Amino acid sequence: MPYSPISFISDFGHSDEFVGVVHGVIAKIAPDVKVIDVTHGIQAGDVRGGALALLRAIQYLPEGVVLAVVDPGVGTARRPIAVQTDWGVFIGPDNGLLSPAVAMVGGASAAHALDNPEFVIPAAGSTFDGRDRFGPAAAVIAGGSASISELGSPIDPQNLTPMLLPLPEHDTGRVTGATWWVDHFGNVQTNLSPDDLDAIGIVRGGDVALTIGPADYALPFVEAYGDVASGSPMLIIDSQGLVALSVRDGRADEFFEIGVDRPVTLRRQADVS
Amino acid sequence: MPYSPISFISDFGHSDEFVGVVHGVIAKIAPDVKVIDVTHGIQAGDVRGGALALLRAIQYLPEGVVLAVVDPGVGTARRPIAVQTDWGVFIGPDNGLLSPAVAMVGGASAAHALDNPEFVIPAAGSTFDGRDRFGPAAAVIAGGSASISELGSPIDPQNLTPMLLPLPEHDTGRVTGATWWVDHFGNVQTNLSPDDLDAIGIVRGGDVALTIGPADYALPFVEAYGDVASGSPMLIIDSQGLVALSVRDGRADEFFEIGVDRPVTLRRQADVS
Amino acid sequence: MPYSPISFISDFGHSDEFVGVVHGVIAKIAPDVKVIDVTHGIQAGDVRGGALALLRAIQYLPEGVVLAVVDPGVGTARRPIAVQTDWGVFIGPDNGLLSPAVAMVGGASAAHALDNPEFVIPAAGSTFDGRDRFGPAAAVIAGGSASISELGSPIDPQNLTPMLLPLPEHDTGRVTGATWWVDHFGNVQTNLSPDDLDAIGIVRGGDVALTIGPADYALPFVEAYGDVASGSPMLIIDSQGLVALSVRDGRADEFFEIGVDRPVTLRRQADVS
Repeated sequence: MPYSPISFISDFGHSDEFVGVVHGVIAKIAPDVKVIDVTHGIQAGDVRGGALALLRAIQYLPEGVVLAVVDPGVGTARRPIAVQTDWGVFIGPDNGLLSPAVAMVGGASAAHALDNPEFVIPAAGSTFDGRDRFGPAAAVIAGGSASISELGSPIDPQNLTPMLLPLPEHDTGRVTGATWWVDHFGNVQTNLSPDDLDAIGIVRGGDVALTIGPADYALPFVEAYGDVASGSPMLIIDSQGLVALSVRDGRADEFFEIGVDRPVTLRRQADVS
Repeated sequence: MPYSPISFISDFGHSDEFVGVVHGVIAKIAPDVKVIDVTHGIQAGDVRGGALALLRAIQYLPEGVVLAVVDPGVGTARRPIAVQTDWGVFIGPDNGLLSPAVAMVGGASAAHALDNPEFVIPAAGSTFDGRDRFGPAAAVIAGGSASISELGSPIDPQNLTPMLLPLPEHDTGRVTGATWWVDHFGNVQTNLSPDDLDAIGIVRGGDVALTIGPADYALPFVEAYGDVASGSPMLIIDSQGLVALSVRDGRADEFFEIGVDRPVTLRRQADVS
Repeated sequence: MPYSPISFISDFGHSDEFVGVVHGVIAKIAPDVKVIDVTHGIQAGDVRGGALALLRAIQYLPEGVVLAVVDPGVGTARRPIAVQTDWGVFIGPDNGLLSPAVAMVGGASAAHALDNPEFVIPAAGSTFDGRDRFGPAAAVIAGGSASISELGSPIDPQNLTPMLLPLPEHDTGRVTGATWWVDHFGNVQTNLSPDDLDAIGIVRGGDVALTIGPADYALPFVEAYGDVASGSPMLIIDSQGLVALSVRDGRADEFFEIGVDRPVTLRRQADVS
């Protein structure tokens, strides 16, 4: 049986040896398993940010095992879990981190708590489950030396912790969404889809009225960065198929002075002026 | 046929999942191909910085495929390309990023635009060519499932976008170069070679007069960091064979208050004082 | 003979191509060797920080080769070395970086200077031994094409540079230790062990009086993060089995305004109030 790759995402950062130690643990258990580092740059403890990054990535990752650790609740009663899906096995804390990606690939068919001590590395403290519990579980699943039912007690997949994500709010001629990602280049992704624009008559090539707090902006809804001049703002469908604010050769987060979790309201510019 | 390794360099940073998603795309297409991350820390959109980093690295990378993405023009008319050389295949945007490294390994024997839709991942937006276009092209070349002529329309290799790099300017008894890299340790690399020093009589062990803007410095031209006292500045031939400013146990960028793209003029100290 | 994995730790950071170039050098010499990046986020030139990170990681890394480069003395008389242990081979500068981990795995049985030019890449300057000397040595050892005695002149393992680490100081009813690591999450590790607490009667569940400079704190000694309320400080045994200061859902370094290398004094709170 070929080994499964492990796709590893966390908020461990790169200043410490946390990521390397988990790689080491996996390599000791399953030396031939490939590990893909999705990112370890999730903000410390930002479960929703980690869940969204995993959601954006999942369709591009090779089927196998996801090892996801954004776990501010380590050392509390939150459960460490393994979740079976048609795509493969998701391993991480039961805090909502896995839920959007699991739903995206069709939902969970089974789930188990990681409470079988045979697959837990004994340690002095209980502060590093990535190393002691999640990493070993991912390694034995990816290496084929255990099935998820051996990892621990069964859990009803219906009872996994969900991740509540905001939904767009439609009103006559306007839609209000939320920003939920500012990327490395300053692009600001919202939770709005092209359908949300369509519903209020915003079409490619048209101008959009954008309200962020007390500020109003007019900007075009375009196909590609090249459709506006350097330094100009635009509304664009980004690589995830979501509505995003961008600035050609610039940073939209700075242009609009906006971060994550902020409401944005869109209307047709023609309806405003 | 053995698989080729892919050497991957970008300005994607590590805060998002961009790098991991490209690894995922490659692993889905060519699971047995090795990917070396050269660096993903190029400043966002800094094409010249990326070109120089690739130029410094290329002779140390295993022959095969270079996947280079510093692409502020994504979504404009700039072409995505694959370039054949004796060293292997270079894949990236046609914005000059690849040119210095391609020249270093002997130049391009063929080039193709990446316009064959068979090797492009369909996506909602056109903002992530690393994932949708460059990554898949690198994977099929490295995995041996396509040749570069299958990737798209042929381009005359003479018409690839060059990267214009500044040249040293010689005058009687002096040479003026430019700083073009400040590394993680604060060393400041210039575009000057030992020959440029030789031409104006600067020899190892001698003292050099350095002018940066209004400021003048005298510092020794040495063989190794250990030749000066801790905290002292020096001129040194760095690991690329270029003239660099360094400070033992310190940062030359802070000592000289200098960044990239600044002129530096060198003379023999004996000719000044 | 199977290849050994290389565990690679450095202060190279991720902004330049240093890490990627060393990976490239290894891949050219030993294409089938696996390289684990332990971390490259050690503070530039922080030999003790690197030694402690390697010490924390070593028991979780697969036996084979350690390649460790935190080398502020590159270009001075400090020796590049390879050290044989029961665990495997450690390669790096002889500046104390390797010593704690070597001691942890049982000590050195042999050591050699890396002075055989056959295994050194010729370069213009002597500023990048990671690329020119340490990387190639690690690759030939891991790939099995050379033994450590071929790498260069033998050195008496007794004469390797040690890393002096501070020891706790016990006085009647109190112990004074030092902080020696602040991790990515703000946890502050000390050099104190559970035995040091035991010696002065501090037990799990009890309250501890902590003195940092002029400031006094009372905080509980707990089993897990979940034992205190969100935002509250605690003394805990961390994942290394050492006494650490933590704040649930917060950063202990900010709460206590403390960094590395600071004295901390502990007493039973019952003895103070």
